[in-house]
Amino acid sequence: MMTDDQDLPPFGGMAIPELPDPASVEPLALGLMQGLPPPPDKRITLANYRDYPNARWAYRHMRELAPTLRVWRGRGTPSALEPAPRDLLAHRYEAPGGARQSIGDWFTQTYGDGLLVLHRGRVVLEHYAGGMQPQDLHLAWSVSKSFVGLLAQLAIEAGQLDPEAPIGALIPELNATSSAGAWTAATVRQVLDMTAGIRYREIYTDPSSEVFGYAFAGGLFAPPAGYAGPRSLDAFLPMLAPEGEHGAGFHYKTAHTEVLAWLVARATGTPLAELLSRQLWQPLGMEEDGAFGVDPAGTAVGGGGLNLALRDLGRTGAMLAAGGRWNGRQIVPTALIEDIRRGGDREKFKASGYIERFGYSYRNQWWVPHDADGSFEAKGIHGQHLHVNPAAELVVAKFSSHPVSTTLFTQHADRAAFAAIAAALRT
Amino acid sequence: MMTDDQDLPPFGGMAIPELPDPASVEPLALGLMQGLPPPPDKRITLANYRDYPNARWAYRHMRELAPTLRVWRGRGTPSALEPAPRDLLAHRYEAPGGARQSIGDWFTQTYGDGLLVLHRGRVVLEHYAGGMQPQDLHLAWSVSKSFVGLLAQLAIEAGQLDPEAPIGALIPELNATSSAGAWTAATVRQVLDMTAGIRYREIYTDPSSEVFGYAFAGGLFAPPAGYAGPRSLDAFLPMLAPEGEHGAGFHYKTAHTEVLAWLVARATGTPLAELLSRQLWQPLGMEEDGAFGVDPAGTAVGGGGLNLALRDLGRTGAMLAAGGRWNGRQIVPTALIEDIRRGGDREKFKASGYIERFGYSYRNQWWVPHDADGSFEAKGIHGQHLHVNPAAELVVAKFSSHPVSTTLFTQHADRAAFAAIAAALRT
Repeated sequence: MMTDDQDLPPFGGMAIPELPDPASVEPLALGLMQGLPPPPDKRITLANYRDYPNARWAYRHMRELAPTLRVWRGRGTPSALEPAPRDLLAHRYEAPGGARQSIGDWFTQTYGDGLLVLHRGRVVLEHYAGGMQPQDLHLAWSVSKSFVGLLAQLAIEAGQLDPEAPIGALIPELNATSSAGAWTAATVRQVLDMTAGIRYREIYTDPSSEVFGYAFAGGLFAPPAGYAGPRSLDAFLPMLAPEGEHGAGFHYKTAHTEVLAWLVARATGTPLAELLSRQLWQPLGMEEDGAFGVDPAGTAVGGGGLNLALRDLGRTGAMLAAGGRWNGRQIVPTALIEDIRRGGDREKFKASGYIERFGYSYRNQWWVPHDADGSFEAKGIHGQHLHVNPAAELVVAKFSSHPVSTTLFTQHADRAAFAAIAAALRT
Repeated sequence: MMTDDQDLPPFGGMAIPELPDPASVEPLALGLMQGLPPPPDKRITLANYRDYPNARWAYRHMRELAPTLRVWRGRGTPSALEPAPRDLLAHRYEAPGGARQSIGDWFTQTYGDGLLVLHRGRVVLEHYAGGMQPQDLHLAWSVSKSFVGLLAQLAIEAGQLDPEAPIGALIPELNATSSAGAWTAATVRQVLDMTAGIRYREIYTDPSSEVFGYAFAGGLFAPPAGYAGPRSLDAFLPMLAPEGEHGAGFHYKTAHTEVLAWLVARATGTPLAELLSRQLWQPLGMEEDGAFGVDPAGTAVGGGGLNLALRDLGRTGAMLAAGGRWNGRQIVPTALIEDIRRGGDREKFKASGYIERFGYSYRNQWWVPHDADGSFEAKGIHGQHLHVNPAAELVVAKFSSHPVSTTLFTQHADRAAFAAIAAALRT
């Protein structure tokens, strides 16, 4: 195992939710959005896309449900992804709890939509389910954050953004409302590492949680009838109140990433989707345009709104695993990747309550397990993953549509699968 | 002149609307959607995008305002568009009314956003204004219809769709409501040529006109507060009432194209956007994915919702001008293009009231001037054009954001410009 988990009660003692048999929620078999047109009870909209089983179809059709900004790939030929197939789906290993199962079992049991495994930059496994195609864009949820983090690091490296600058000096709009001051004295580094002190709860099962106001403002969720709250991120963010001390502890809050995205756009003078195209999509030789959810002010939803093709997520991982080189050029300076790998403050991480990620830290919008292989990870709710393991020269990219948003119940199973793949590739 | 216009009073005696100086409605200079984020009074949404000057920015940013379906270009290298530059913008000619002006004057005075001229398949002019880039997708409005027409012709050619079949037998849903029967006995050919008898007024300045119900249902316009009408095309179309006799006269009605799009999807078992990708976007070697406006049932808005890059509109024209060959293959059988060129019934066309297109006919969703050069045209409101002139081996593709929807006031100026370009290329 790569993790050094303590002997905690499973899932902090929380009850494991009852889950549908994955075979019973196959979107094509259920006829979701199938038919010309689909019958009314099989139609999926922004108002019902997160309901199960709709999510199984919806997370790879988001641009059909809401406005999106293009992340342009440019006009070049896609960078090569050479095949080097291995029968990893059949590879069996001991899963947490002691059962022997295959990588294919893990993929299915975690409601996988697509799985791409790269070893030494070559494709050892590419597998899709539920009708997903290689060219389909899947909602990355919070994997988006790690892309914003890379853009922030690049802006800092270029001298456009000072990590120690207070946010109030860079985005005066965040000082401008009555409850404000929440962000004023926090630094760029503190939002980058999510240690700024802001009242913002991210509990997807609690509608009073601030994440709902965020998702309504950003257009990720359809607001309920009569909703009178903010309709854009720049209206929402200044309303947040302070909580605790800046820099004291890590608390995972998507609002930080939206402020970071705003900082990056301001610092570079470039809208986020355009910057992502210039800095990553074009140089990486992406195969498909990406698509960013967009609010009514034209702002990309950096904290959770990026949609991309699985192969392009894999290209990103391959570049990171190779120290920033891909497609014949240095795309991200190696030192920036080393800064991610070193991780953040593991003591501060403990404040987060992420019991399933004991031993992790969080740095530059990436999760860092501090394992022996020096791996780091981008993660999103409902099972979105980019696992980069430099020592094993391994990248695992996975899109899923798991019924449960939190990864509390899948974290250990996912880590075990990544470790099993790494072990299989070492033999 | 290529047209054989009679000596009608200019614009049928209608008053020419007062128009803003094009230089006063430059979207970048006005700061429309500029800023990170833009100030509230410069924000453009689905509720205000058609208001002037917002349209100048909006028609090439529609996917940021509403959901869209991708028209996938595939993974290939874009087909080559060889340059063969000519200084056509400076070319002067006699415009209607007798004034001498340049092609550049015409482009500016008609609020042009992009102009691409191909001669013998090579690019003699490519010009953009107002910040438009070659990779930007522009709303084609009713140019969309001509793409649907090509798909319908291909489905007929493949034996999947019988042009003489009554619609009621193919789409029983159109028989299913109280007011119905409107479409039941009309044939595929009659919707293809817009001679079916349906009550549907397309007057963009009259909110009681059926085009508004269509645009609300299709998601092209934001419905007003309290709107309780249909929210999808399959709910809207069966509500239309019959009017007149099927086949008696040509009447331009977008509802026909939506029924045609439905027929094509049914006949091929393929959603429209996917079919367009397979039949045209992939074989033509398009440079950018297209984007189709989509209703809440997932149906592409075939009558007016296609967004595409100017070069890709040009590639379509080049293929048609070359008898259906492009990118090293026969994409549309020559006989189908000949069927467009022969045109429809010019007597029936007179019923339409299109005084500015005297002498035209309408066939397979294309406008046919019956000029000496055998030209044919796709046209959309606010100045969208694909002019194909086979004799002159000329293609003119133009996107615009003219303040006036109807082309009544620009038709003669546009035709004169096309003729001047053809004449210039012949010298």
